[in-house]
This record gives sequence, C-alpha cells and structure tokens, in this order.
Amino acid sequence: MASSVSNSDRKIVNGPAGYVLEDVPHFSDYFPDHPTYPNPLQDNAAYSVVKQYFVDEDDTVPQKIVVHPDSPRGTHFRRAGPRQRVYFESDDVLACIVTCGGLCPGLNTVIREIVCGLSYMYGVKRILGIDGGYRGFYARNVIHLDLKTVNDIHRSGGTILGTSRGGHDTTKIVDSIQDRGINQVYIIGGDGSQKGAAVIFDEIRRRGLKVAVAGIPKTIDNDIPIIDRSFGFDTAVEEAQRAINAAHVEATSFENCIGLVKLMGRYSGFIAMYATLASRDVDCCLIPESPFFLEGPGGLFEFIEKRLKENGHMVIVIAEGAGQDLLSESAEQSTTLKDASGNKLLQDIGLWISQRIKDHFTKKKMTLNLKYIDPTYMIRAVPGNASDNVCCTLLAQSAVHGVMAGYNGFTVGLVNGRHTYIPFYRITEKQNKVVITDRMWARLLSSTNQPSFMRHDKSDSNQLAGEAGTMKW
Amino acid sequence: MASSVSNSDRKIVNGPAGYVLEDVPHFSDYFPDHPTYPNPLQDNAAYSVVKQYFVDEDDTVPQKIVVHPDSPRGTHFRRAGPRQRVYFESDDVLACIVTCGGLCPGLNTVIREIVCGLSYMYGVKRILGIDGGYRGFYARNVIHLDLKTVNDIHRSGGTILGTSRGGHDTTKIVDSIQDRGINQVYIIGGDGSQKGAAVIFDEIRRRGLKVAVAGIPKTIDNDIPIIDRSFGFDTAVEEAQRAINAAHVEATSFENCIGLVKLMGRYSGFIAMYATLASRDVDCCLIPESPFFLEGPGGLFEFIEKRLKENGHMVIVIAEGAGQDLLSESAEQSTTLKDASGNKLLQDIGLWISQRIKDHFTKKKMTLNLKYIDPTYMIRAVPGNASDNVCCTLLAQSAVHGVMAGYNGFTVGLVNGRHTYIPFYRITEKQNKVVITDRMWARLLSSTNQPSFMRHDKSDSNQLAGEAGTMKW
Amino acid sequence: MASSVSNSDRKIVNGPAGYVLEDVPHFSDYFPDHPTYPNPLQDNAAYSVVKQYFVDEDDTVPQKIVVHPDSPRGTHFRRAGPRQRVYFESDDVLACIVTCGGLCPGLNTVIREIVCGLSYMYGVKRILGIDGGYRGFYARNVIHLDLKTVNDIHRSGGTILGTSRGGHDTTKIVDSIQDRGINQVYIIGGDGSQKGAAVIFDEIRRRGLKVAVAGIPKTIDNDIPIIDRSFGFDTAVEEAQRAINAAHVEATSFENCIGLVKLMGRYSGFIAMYATLASRDVDCCLIPESPFFLEGPGGLFEFIEKRLKENGHMVIVIAEGAGQDLLSESAEQSTTLKDASGNKLLQDIGLWISQRIKDHFTKKKMTLNLKYIDPTYMIRAVPGNASDNVCCTLLAQSAVHGVMAGYNGFTVGLVNGRHTYIPFYRITEKQNKVVITDRMWARLLSSTNQPSFMRHDKSDSNQLAGEAGTMKW
Amino acid sequence: MASSVSNSDRKIVNGPAGYVLEDVPHFSDYFPDHPTYPNPLQDNAAYSVVKQYFVDEDDTVPQKIVVHPDSPRGTHFRRAGPRQRVYFESDDVLACIVTCGGLCPGLNTVIREIVCGLSYMYGVKRILGIDGGYRGFYARNVIHLDLKTVNDIHRSGGTILGTSRGGHDTTKIVDSIQDRGINQVYIIGGDGSQKGAAVIFDEIRRRGLKVAVAGIPKTIDNDIPIIDRSFGFDTAVEEAQRAINAAHVEATSFENCIGLVKLMGRYSGFIAMYATLASRDVDCCLIPESPFFLEGPGGLFEFIEKRLKENGHMVIVIAEGAGQDLLSESAEQSTTLKDASGNKLLQDIGLWISQRIKDHFTKKKMTLNLKYIDPTYMIRAVPGNASDNVCCTLLAQSAVHGVMAGYNGFTVGLVNGRHTYIPFYRITEKQNKVVITDRMWARLLSSTNQPSFMRHDKSDSNQLAGEAGTMKW
Repeated sequence: MASSVSNSDRKIVNGPAGYVLEDVPHFSDYFPDHPTYPNPLQDNAAYSVVKQYFVDEDDTVPQKIVVHPDSPRGTHFRRAGPRQRVYFESDDVLACIVTCGGLCPGLNTVIREIVCGLSYMYGVKRILGIDGGYRGFYARNVIHLDLKTVNDIHRSGGTILGTSRGGHDTTKIVDSIQDRGINQVYIIGGDGSQKGAAVIFDEIRRRGLKVAVAGIPKTIDNDIPIIDRSFGFDTAVEEAQRAINAAHVEATSFENCIGLVKLMGRYSGFIAMYATLASRDVDCCLIPESPFFLEGPGGLFEFIEKRLKENGHMVIVIAEGAGQDLLSESAEQSTTLKDASGNKLLQDIGLWISQRIKDHFTKKKMTLNLKYIDPTYMIRAVPGNASDNVCCTLLAQSAVHGVMAGYNGFTVGLVNGRHTYIPFYRITEKQNKVVITDRMWARLLSSTNQPSFMRHDKSDSNQLAGEAGTMKW
Repeated sequence: MASSVSNSDRKIVNGPAGYVLEDVPHFSDYFPDHPTYPNPLQDNAAYSVVKQYFVDEDDTVPQKIVVHPDSPRGTHFRRAGPRQRVYFESDDVLACIVTCGGLCPGLNTVIREIVCGLSYMYGVKRILGIDGGYRGFYARNVIHLDLKTVNDIHRSGGTILGTSRGGHDTTKIVDSIQDRGINQVYIIGGDGSQKGAAVIFDEIRRRGLKVAVAGIPKTIDNDIPIIDRSFGFDTAVEEAQRAINAAHVEATSFENCIGLVKLMGRYSGFIAMYATLASRDVDCCLIPESPFFLEGPGGLFEFIEKRLKENGHMVIVIAEGAGQDLLSESAEQSTTLKDASGNKLLQDIGLWISQRIKDHFTKKKMTLNLKYIDPTYMIRAVPGNASDNVCCTLLAQSAVHGVMAGYNGFTVGLVNGRHTYIPFYRITEKQNKVVITDRMWARLLSSTNQPSFMRHDKSDSNQLAGEAGTMKW
Repeated sequence: MASSVSNSDRKIVNGPAGYVLEDVPHFSDYFPDHPTYPNPLQDNAAYSVVKQYFVDEDDTVPQKIVVHPDSPRGTHFRRAGPRQRVYFESDDVLACIVTCGGLCPGLNTVIREIVCGLSYMYGVKRILGIDGGYRGFYARNVIHLDLKTVNDIHRSGGTILGTSRGGHDTTKIVDSIQDRGINQVYIIGGDGSQKGAAVIFDEIRRRGLKVAVAGIPKTIDNDIPIIDRSFGFDTAVEEAQRAINAAHVEATSFENCIGLVKLMGRYSGFIAMYATLASRDVDCCLIPESPFFLEGPGGLFEFIEKRLKENGHMVIVIAEGAGQDLLSESAEQSTTLKDASGNKLLQDIGLWISQRIKDHFTKKKMTLNLKYIDPTYMIRAVPGNASDNVCCTLLAQSAVHGVMAGYNGFTVGLVNGRHTYIPFYRITEKQNKVVITDRMWARLLSSTNQPSFMRHDKSDSNQLAGEAGTMKW
Repeated sequence: MASSVSNSDRKIVNGPAGYVLEDVPHFSDYFPDHPTYPNPLQDNAAYSVVKQYFVDEDDTVPQKIVVHPDSPRGTHFRRAGPRQRVYFESDDVLACIVTCGGLCPGLNTVIREIVCGLSYMYGVKRILGIDGGYRGFYARNVIHLDLKTVNDIHRSGGTILGTSRGGHDTTKIVDSIQDRGINQVYIIGGDGSQKGAAVIFDEIRRRGLKVAVAGIPKTIDNDIPIIDRSFGFDTAVEEAQRAINAAHVEATSFENCIGLVKLMGRYSGFIAMYATLASRDVDCCLIPESPFFLEGPGGLFEFIEKRLKENGHMVIVIAEGAGQDLLSESAEQSTTLKDASGNKLLQDIGLWISQRIKDHFTKKKMTLNLKYIDPTYMIRAVPGNASDNVCCTLLAQSAVHGVMAGYNGFTVGLVNGRHTYIPFYRITEKQNKVVITDRMWARLLSSTNQPSFMRHDKSDSNQLAGEAGTMKW
C-alpha cells in the first residue's frame, strides 16, 4: 500500500531566507466556494476571557531548530489550533473514529478527547466508533459514542473500539464513509495505518467528497519521523523499569546470572534506549539500529563472559527487532526449529538469544543462570500516565480543531514542543530510528560501558549514516 | 535426600480428651545439664511495661479448629515466642543465615529481622551470612552482617545473601559449622531446603554439637503444609493482578483474543487460584491439582470455542505445573520439538499450550489472537508488601526466640493465625495442595464458570481425595 | 442506641469439657414451621465436583486457640458457609444492601460479591441498593443492582451506594423494609452501624417479620472485637507506607527535621502500629491506647530533643485518637483557638501537636523543621488490594450463605482464619484495642526504641489492664 | 539578593535577519590565555563510533519557534553539549555540588549524574557534596562523593546532600570555595538559589578566580522562565493524580460532598493546571494567576452551590498560592485566628478556604461534607519517574560539558526540546506563570466548565496581560 502522493501533490510554500512551509491540504484548495462559519468557540464562556485563543493563520513551526547565525530557515509545518472560521456546521457533522494496529497506552484518552473536543468545543452530537480497526468500516456495526460512553475510558488500557492489523480495503472503506454520510474521519494508528489514511484521503478527494481525514500517529515504539515523541512512549518507558528492576534483582541474587529483558521496538530501539538510560542497571542494550554478532572477539558472548567474571551478574535489554539478521541466518541453517505444523519456532529474538547464550556457556562448561523476561503485553496494556494523558488530550483537540478549520489529509504531531499539522507523506515516507552516530546513543554506550559490537573486517559505515532522529536532547 | 527422622524420634505428648502435642526437639532433651540464663529481654526498657510478654511453657495451638462439640482435641503445636530462660549467652552466640532456592518477596526482610532480633533483643553481635545457598557453607567466604548492613535491604527484592538450588553436602556443611564455631543456623528455604535442614540437624545431633538449627519456610507457591500461608504469597498474588489486567485489556481489544497468563505453582495452584479470585476477569484457571484435557467434548478447546463465541475474548490463567501429564505425552510423540543442541524446547507449559491452541484454531480455520504473558520473574523479584513485611518480621523474631530458648530442629510457622514451632518432618513429609473437592475451588469454579474438565470415562476420583489444604477461609 | 439484647436473648449452647457455643438466631427459633428448600447450589455445575461443599451443621470455631493440655474448651462460634437446606425460594427474595459510616477499601467489592453471590449461587434476581446510608431507607429512592451494574465496581474506591453517618430511625427503616417487601437486609458498617443492625433486627423480630438481617463489619481502624482483622485494613497499612516514606525522605533531607504522619485510629491504634512495624523508619508511634505527655522528664518533647540530637531527624506516627486527653485539657485552658464563627479550631491532633512541638522548640530557640502529613483520605479512598479483595469476596459469600440458610441477626467475621457467624452483641459490646501489655506492642517499642511515656507519679495500671486484642501473631 | 548583572555585562551577539544570541560568559572572555586541552571523550571507547558527538561551536537554539514567513529570527541560546577543547585538566578539577530550597523528585538523580558525568566522561576524581544548602559551604563539613556513594541514590526521593532555604552569605561561600581550592561549583536550586549562584559568580569573577559556576534549575512548580519544563514536574503531576482520585472517590461517596485538594504552586499554577487536565475529575481549579472571589454573583460560593445542586459532589484543586489576596484581607479583619503564642493560624489557603466554605454553608443551613487533602509532602518526596530520570541525566551531563568547555555563570535548560546554556539573568529576572489569556488555560476552563470568577465591576485586564509562558503545547 504505497503512498500515492506524488511530489506534484505536495503543497510547498517558499518564503524569504530559505523559509519553506510544507503545508497540508485544505478544503479551500479544491472546494473554492465552500461556505465558512464563525468558530462556535468564540461564544463559549470558557474561552471568552482568553484573548490569544485563535491561532494566527501565518503561525508555523520550524522542523530544525539547532541553527547557526546564518542558517537558511528551512522546513516549517503549520501550527495546530482553532481558527476564526470553520468549514462545518456542528449539526451537519458526522464524525467517526477508528483505532488500528497494536495497543498503546493512551489510546482511550485520544478517543475520549476527540469525542469531548467535538462535543464541548464544537457542539457536535453525532460521533461513531468503528469497531476493530479498518475492517470495521465494512464488516461490523458502528458504535455510537457520546460523553457518557467515554467518561471513564481513559482509566483503562487498550481501546474500547477494538483494533486489528490490516483489513484495509480502500474502496469498501470509502464506500462505507460515503454511504453512511460520514464527513470527518479520525484515524489513530501507526506508520502503516497512516499510509492507509493517506490512501483513503486520496480516494475521497478523487470522488470529490466533502470529507475530512485526519491522522493521530500512534506508535509505542516512537518510530514515526518528524514528531518529538508519540503518545504512550513515556508510559511504556516507565513500565519497562519494572521489568528491568526484576531482571536486576534476579541477576544479583544468583551466581553468574543474566537477567534478559526483551522490550518493544521492531525497527527502532527508542524504548530500549530510554529504558536503559532511565534505569542505570543495564549492562548491555541491543537495538535494531546497531548491528551485533555473537561469537569471537568483540562479540556479545565475549562481552558477557567479561562482565560476568567482573561482577557475577549482568542485565541485558534487547529490542524485539534487534539481531534479526542473526535470526534469519540461523533459521536457514537449522531446519529443526519448527513445530509439528511447520511453523517456525523461536522467531522471538529473546527466546532465541536466550537459547544461544545458554548453549554457548554449556559448551564452555560454565555455570550460567539466565532469567528471561518479556513484559511486552504488560507494558502496552496499561493506561497512559499523567504526562501521556495530557499529551493525548492536546493531540485529540488539535486534530478536531484542524478538521473543523477545513484542513485535510494531515497528521497531528508535536514538533519541537508545538502541535502542528503534517502532510501524510512526511510521516510515512520513512521511519524514525535511533541514530547511533548521535549523542544519545553515545550517552547510552557511556552508561552501559558496552562495546560497539562492530566487526572491524567489514564496513558497517553505511548503517551508521543517516539523519538525526527525533528526541535529540 | 529423604528425611531421616523415624517415628521413634518424634516427640509426641498426649493429653486429656484426645489432646496431642507434636513437639519439637529441645536442648534439654539431650543436654540435660545445659546451663540456662535469664532472658535479656526482661531488662529491655521497651519490654518493661509489657506484662504478658513471655510465653507460658504450656501454650500450644491446635492444628484443626473447625470442631464439633464432642470433637477430640487433636494435634497441637508449641506456641512460638520468648521464654523466661534462654540457653545461650549473648556473647557466645555465632549465628549464621542462609537463603536457598528461588526468590520470594520478603526474603531480605526475614534476613534483616533475624539480624535485628538477635542484636536488639538478645545483644548478639556475631552474625554471618552464607553466600549463595547451601554451597556457600563450604565453597565461599561468609559475609558479616550487622544492623548497618541490613538497614535498608527490606526495600529491595531478592536476597542480599544470594541463593541457589541444590549444593547440599551434609558433611561439608556440618564440618563448616563445626570448624567456624557457628552455634545457631537459620535456614530460609522451601520444601527441599527444609529437608536439608532436617538432615543437617540430624548430623549435628549425631555429632553431639551444641548447635541450634531453625527453618523459616519460604515458598512463593504456598506449597508447604500445616502453615496458614507462606511469606511473599500475598505480594505475589497482588503482583499477579498486573499480568491478569494486561491479559484482560489485550483480550478485549482484539477480535477472538485470548490473554494467557502463566503463574507460579509447580505442584500447587494457590497463586493461580487466589489471583483468579482477586481479579474477577479470568475465564479459566488451570492448576496442577485439577487435571484437564484438550480435545473433544468437555475439553479445553471446546470451552475456549464456546467462550470466544459468546464474548469474543477470554482470559486463561495457568499454573506452571498444570497439565504436565499432557506435556510429557506430547514430548514423547513429537521429537521435532528440539533445538540444534538437542535440548527439548517448549518445556514451558505456557508456550506449549499457546502453540497447541493456535494450532487447533488454525486447523479449524478460525481467526485467533493469543497474547501470552509470563510475569514470573517480575512477580518474585519485588520487595514484600506491608502485610508480608510484618509477617516476615514476626517469623524471624519467632525463630530467634525459639533458638535462644533452646528449641531445635524446628520450622516456624503461622498456624491458624498464631506463630508456632513445627517439627521438620511435618513440613517436609508432603506438600500443601489446593483441594479441589473443597469450597475454595468451588468458589473459583463459580467465579469463572469453567467446566470441571473431567473425563467421564475414567475415574479421577483418586485425584480428588485428600485432606483439606490450608487457607480454608 | 444501646443494644437491646439482654442476656436472656442470647443463644448459648454448652457442651462437654467446657465447650460453649455462642450461637446466632435462626428462623427455626421463632418460625418453627418455616418451609425449607434444597440448596440450589447442589444443582450448580461448578459445585458438582466438590464433595465437601456443604458445611456440617455442627461445625464451630473456637475463639481462643492458644491452649494448654487441660484448658477448658471455651467459647465457639458457628462456622459460616452453605447449608443443605435453605429458607428462601430464590424468586421470593428481595434483598437490599446498605453501606454506612466512613469509606474503607473494599466496600465496592463487598457490594459486588453480595450481588454476585445471590445471583450466581442462589439465582436471586431482585437486589436493591440503599442510597447514602441508613437514611436512604426512608429518604431516598433505592437503586436496582444487577450483575452488570456491579461488574467493574471493585476497581474503584469508595462505595457506589453512597454512605453517611447517623440517620438511623428504626421505625422508619423497618417500615420501609416492610412496605417494600424486602426480606434480606445486608448492612455493611462499623461498630455503630452494627448496633443499628441489632436494633433493626430486634424490631423486625418484634413485628414478627420474616426478614433476615446480616452485618458485614467494616472498620478501617480494625476496632471491631472477636474478628481477626477487618477488610480494608491490609490495604490501609500498605497505603500508609507512602506517607511514612515521604515523612522519612523529608526528615532526612532537612536539618533538625521531624516528619509527622497522622493515621486513622479514633479509638484503636492498629493502623499506626502495623504501619510502623511494616515501615521500619518510624522513631515514635503514638496511639490512643498508650497515654503520653509532652513536657518534662520522660515526656515527648524530651524524647524528640534526644532523637534529633542523635540523628538530626525523626519520624513520628500518630493515630488520630491519640492524646485526646491532652487536646481537651488544652482546649479548656485556651479559648483563643476558635474561628470567627466560634468553631473550635485544631481539633485535629496532628495539627495541634505540630503547633505544640513548634512552640516548644521556638521557646528553646532551637531550629526545627516540621513536615506534617495527613494521608487519611488518600488511604481510605483507594480500592482494596488483592488480599482484601479475596477477603471481601469470602465475607460477602458467607453472609449470603448464612441468610439463605435461615440464620439471622448475625455478623460475619473471620475468627482464627475461619469464617463464622457471630451474634451482634459480641461485636458491639466493646471495641478491639491494641493491648499495650501484649507482645505486639512490645515489638513496636523494640522497633522504635521509644520510651513508654508513662508518668511514674500516677498509676496508669488501670489503662494497661484488659483482654488481649486480636491479631495476636 | 537582587541580581547584580547589569545590561552592560550581557553578552549579546547580533546576526543577520534579526538573529540575536544571548550568550553566556566563557573563561576565554576574561582569561584570554587560559590553556585548553583535547576533550578526553574523544579517547573514550563508548564515543569512538559516534561521529556527531561534539557540538558545533555555532549551534544555537531559538527561544521563539512559532514563526511567520517573515518573522525576525529573534533570541537564541547556545546549545549545550561537549566541545572539542576543554578548559580543565581532569586531575586538577575539584568540583562541588550543592542542593538548595525545597525537595523535588529527581534531585538525587541530578547529583548522581553530575558525579557519573565528571567521573566516567572526564576522569574527574575529586567531587565534594556541600551539606544542607548554601550554609553548608561555611558551617558544615563537606561530603566526599564517588561512583559508589551515588550508585543507588536515584531510587530515593529527597537529596542525600540535605538542603535548606536561605543561608546565602556570599563572602563566606566564596571564601570557602577559594580556601578549599574548589574550581567547579554546581548549584541545584530554584529561582532564589539561581540568583544566589549569579551573585557567587560575580564575586568569583571580581576576585579573578578560575572557578566555574553552573546552575541546574530546580523548581517543582515549573516557575522558572525560558525553559520548557523543570525536572520533577512530570513526576509531581503524576503523583498529584492520587490525591485528586481520592478527592473524587470521597466526593462521590457522600452527599453534597466537596473533595478539596491543595497542590504546590506558590506563584505559578502549573501543577494544579496540568494535574487538572490529566485527571478529568476536577470541577474547579484555582491558581495564583487567576484571581477569584468568594461571595456574591459570579463568586466561588455561587459556583459551588450550583455544581453541588447539579451533581451532588465536586472536586476543587487549589494551588497553594491562589487567593492570597483574600487570605491577607481576611487576616487583617480577623484577629482571632491566632494561637496562644500569637502565631497566625490558617496561613494555609487550603485550611482557610475549607473553613470559609463550611461557614458559608452552615449559615445557609445546607448540609455539606468537605474532605480536605494536602498531598504536598507526599508528592515532593517521591523519586523521579523514568521520564524525569532521563531529563535529570541530560541536564547534569549538559552542565558538566559546559563547565569543562569553559562556559561559566550559566544555567542549563531545555529550550524547545534542546539543551542550552542560558545566562543567569534570564532565569532570575522574572517567573514563569500560567498565562490565563493563553490556550492552555482555555483548555482547562473548557475541561472544568468553571466560570472565570472575574468581577465585572473592576478591571482585571492588567492581570491578564503578559507574555506566553512555557509549555505552550
């Protein structure tokens, strides 16, 4: 499902001194005579005292803010927030919300706050929940959402709407949107789901429908580019501490003991890296972005032996996507690692590497205790913490303000601490990754004192290139 | 390492109306002229106001307290607590503490309170920690323990002394005790370790040493008989709630989703049962004591299908020792479940049953999401909660009082809410198990509405017989 | 509202060897021809495998279990649990539940499990909640309760029924019971509310109504006699740790700093005592049962000075009912401690003693930092922990079984670890208090090393007499 | 202690397009021949793979990032991080750390990471802790800090160094620095302490000492300007949820019940505002920045009556600095609110307003339950959460890098998500406050639906003016 957005569709505005605005589509772009209405917020008692409420049309936020005195001004995104005029009458709105992909702390808060934002701020009364991800558009009944339904949901993990992976059938989805008369679509999902949102938006635009599509990026792994951090990430790092603490306690209570914790991170090791930095008890952190090998000088086994000899115990954190190259090599060589049905076993890097470490030390006749902890589901299923709850609230409100103001085909996102509207293609064209030539990773290496695990005989330099990721603290 | 205690060694005292006291050995039994000293507590300012402090020599506690008007009085145990006279002079005491087996919340509190009890209450200054379980007696240096060393350890999980399984070499251990001049041995450990303590006691007695041996029973599984509950159990059940909550959130957020949680319980399903009763979100609880089968009418797969059809989701809690009969059958049939080194894979019932459930639904072409959570290490590594901390304190103090008072070869234990001294053989001769013909299990069945999973074609009645376990609430 | 139960109403059964059963009323006592029905549990699939399910009519539990070989057998209570025959047809039951007095962790679990117990086990369909305590019987609408209403309430603190103090108008309450046709009344409340329950039961019996009244004792202070512990107590002690930890951190971070924590305990210092024992960071624990004074040798100020000079910091835990004699003396002398409306200020012992300590050190020109923490509402408003949730479940089920089996005018309670039915008068005739001549208090004194605060010039011996309280570990 | 920095001391650099750099002092400014050394990090194995490690000398970060295409570039701050050359030889460094003012989650992590940063990254071996705040420089012994001392301190709240308010005697402090040969001073403290740091820096510079002074801003209230948020703030908002939850449970369990929570915030209501936004259970949030009154139309009492009539319950959050104008008016009128020693009672806005609300409803003969919760010490005494721990680590490392690189007289701070060096005067010249004409406050008003509490008869407009505060999400 490749993004169909060509460069020609991009809305790029250039300004003085190298200023560039990567803008998002707007109803006025293709419905030039679309009526507008005064923003109902201006009659809202709560907002009456607030003078700086509406966002200036020209407000934008730069992507790059580490600058030199003579730097060109670079790429900017449009600032999120309420506008003086809106493109929907409250009574005409029929909004829907869908959650896609894996669980993430804060999902229910986002749902709640889209409903509350539409209701309280804009007087919208008709809001639907799509059941169980994209396929819910065409294969399930919708759920009616109101203030009462969502009142307490932010206290629970998961998503009250249900979720699923895949199920994206553009035609059926847009048919359903059209047939039901939905005119606002809020899509909460990761990388793939945002691509799906882009395709839905293209189809809607192709059909000439007056329907707004907004994405709220959801990724517990923090692997979405441009944005500072994704909601739920803070909570995930916090919860991961429990597992690391347990690994530390186990490791220090037994002789020659390794506590091994697998954390989320299919393509990006942010959770593993931040959990390691927050914990201080980790001896080795393995992430997808930093290749490693097991045997021989400079390899993982050597480092484990060294650390165990020094301290008698060790804590290893491994992201689920780390070492997948080793895993696939191994799977080719060994055909026994299958179950009765022919499924590959041990696709799990944590189980696999546990076994490999045990085998290695068995061969060397060294005693080893290895305690493997996989807290994945215990992390993703908790409700958002206070910080993530505030974050989710503001994302939801930004999405609602943007849609009401006529913006379309955008993702909301925190850029350098400000909420912005970002075109879909910027979110989906690549993934946010830990840049292992950057300072944050150096801090981690300094904290764990682990080696670089690089083979000197082959060049890993390609892997090390790349633009700086977010969270550049 | 079978208990060497023969019936003739047992110290049984009979009284009127069927009263029986199963007493524990005492220095005066075999050192008739052993000198005694006034208990230093009577000069302790803190105790001076307390008039009912010393335990009456005749105080005992009945094992069975659900009685009829004409019931015989039955078995009693000696009440724990300080006595008027002690059998050690404080300056002569050289005590040692060893922790054996797996981790359990509260271990450090027990260590701390033995040290504090000996120091504050009895003025003992020389206390050693044995490093890394039984083998530490002969293969490691000892650790000197004092009030400062142990001051904050109760805030951390694990054991500061380190622990291990096995390593019990009676001769070497008693040699070490004799050579170092140790005269009080506190052994914190489970079932097997208490058997070890009994053997050490026998050898000490055989050699005619004036050395006291006391056991503090440690079992997160609550599988030690006679006693009400073991320390750490409450904390374990509390922590298990997190995993069950996560399973519930996952299960309700996806279509046809099973949240499967494996909990501790090698031979006894108490943690699984209490965690299920405390949670209310569990649809099926599988424990070692209650056999089950997978296929066909009345089997687990049928129940899963039914529950998923009704609710769309399901939470299963399984104790690690449940279904071991199925696992071993399966292992015989299938030789493919091995890794390159020939190790059996999937010895873990949780992973095994997850795979079997997935295979079953794949065969039936039903969509199924299964989320497997194994929180074992995250549960056992937490520090004790307030309730367990108080429990550990009182156990430690009871052990110290008993040893100082000349009792020997005993385990301390809470019997019907009172601390008692129990002969080793009563603790080690069998395991505490959930009695599935008793009310507690009925409450669980009623709470989950799960079937009994009994085959009607073969008699399971033998398995159902048996004495009521503890925690008979 | 004195208990109207005279000795002649008591149902005392004597047996051999000094056996006494203090029995509870039963429908068969005064409705000799009341029909009975088979217990529907015997047809319940969940119970079909359980052979020891029904409680033997003769099962009783002794109150005193520290015994000598020739002890008389003493007082017993009837064991709780389901009986073979029941005195209600499920369809005829109209049950109601009322919660009275202050909040306590686990209240919602008790409500939930009475509803679940009646519904699942006995097929009862009509269950009412009384709104806002006793006055809800006559001044408010009732709330209809079913399995759906109560499904998630155990996750929240407080009580969904609302509660209040007072409002007990016997005539109006029994009129309402009669008029609405209620025939089962479950009263969850403390000391005073149980007295109210006794009076309601008397009036119901006087009117000859076929209505059962059962009490579930609720007291976060654990001040109800006979029973081992009250639900919510464990959770309260756990939560109190947070406040003590905070006091400890504050105290150790500033010079000459006292962290002062006020805990619940109007007449009984159990929470303060157990929280102190569980924490290990407390230097002084003040409870209602142990008088103290401020000035002069042996007084509190002297001890504070001493401890601050030694350590530079100090943690004091004070139960809300401690030192009330000092407070009332002070209030008489000082008439300035009133606000504009003439209300007495500083009735709060915590605020009062904080001020007195500050004044004392100001007079002595000593620097003092005092940090006062009152966590009361933060403790009582949390949901029950796992241990209390199981406890609440079993109490609720015991109450339901007892009522269905025709018992009446009773309180359920855990006695030596077994659930029993206890006559109201035994629960209400006095309060459970910490016995400061008993070992538990000695343990506390030993742990804090605080002085006894007794004046040597006047006899405090009367205050020290008294029967041993529960929780005698 | 006014900042002595005059405009002429400011290091302002102007660039093209309105670019302004507000730079910080540097050793090279006044020691032109100060030797420099290669940064030892370049030999550090952990950093050897990292190519983008050293910060470009020209890197700066803009203060204002909501921009228009033609905006002038505005104020920038120097980016924090390691430089190629350092101004200290590791063996020559004698660093000291002091913590001042109230407690804040994360204090110990900052201490730990300054020690770890100096040791691991720069090989510094001599690090001193100043005991108990500024006065520790001259009135106490110093504490030697090393990796072992600080290893576990981040798990505890408070500060291992002790802290105090005041005690700032510039001459004595700088004498002590000079006499002991200290050449790096790290000052962790709030607003007032940073002013103190500025004065110390001025005196050091006046004396011509080669001593670096760096501030790490600490304020749980988030009242320091320029920076995005202060460490500990996230944790504080998280912990505040407990108190608000308790207030909500109490309020909903009793009739006409108000749960009133006082939170930190002497001059700035950020904690109250964010805790309210994160919670969703608050009906009214009162902060110092938004004036309110009690009686009459549009006042607080009217709103309380309205909300209680609608819902029967209400949660109010009040910052400690809110309504101080009312409090001082009241104190003038009423002279009875004093205790025996003549101390003013009820200086606490929470206790004061509780009494006023009760009095009001007593006068109106309305039943009212009011539950007052002051969680202040329970919030500030917790250790930092994961997010704050990472934040503290990076602040500490930034401070160390800056000092080693020869920067001086600066505070480290997160500006728009990047770490920067900020001149003292920018931090101390005013306080960060909630801007109640800004959107965040509008969001809060919208969430609570509380009135603006503004008197229409007098102009509050002055109070509403002002620049936007930080955390502008």
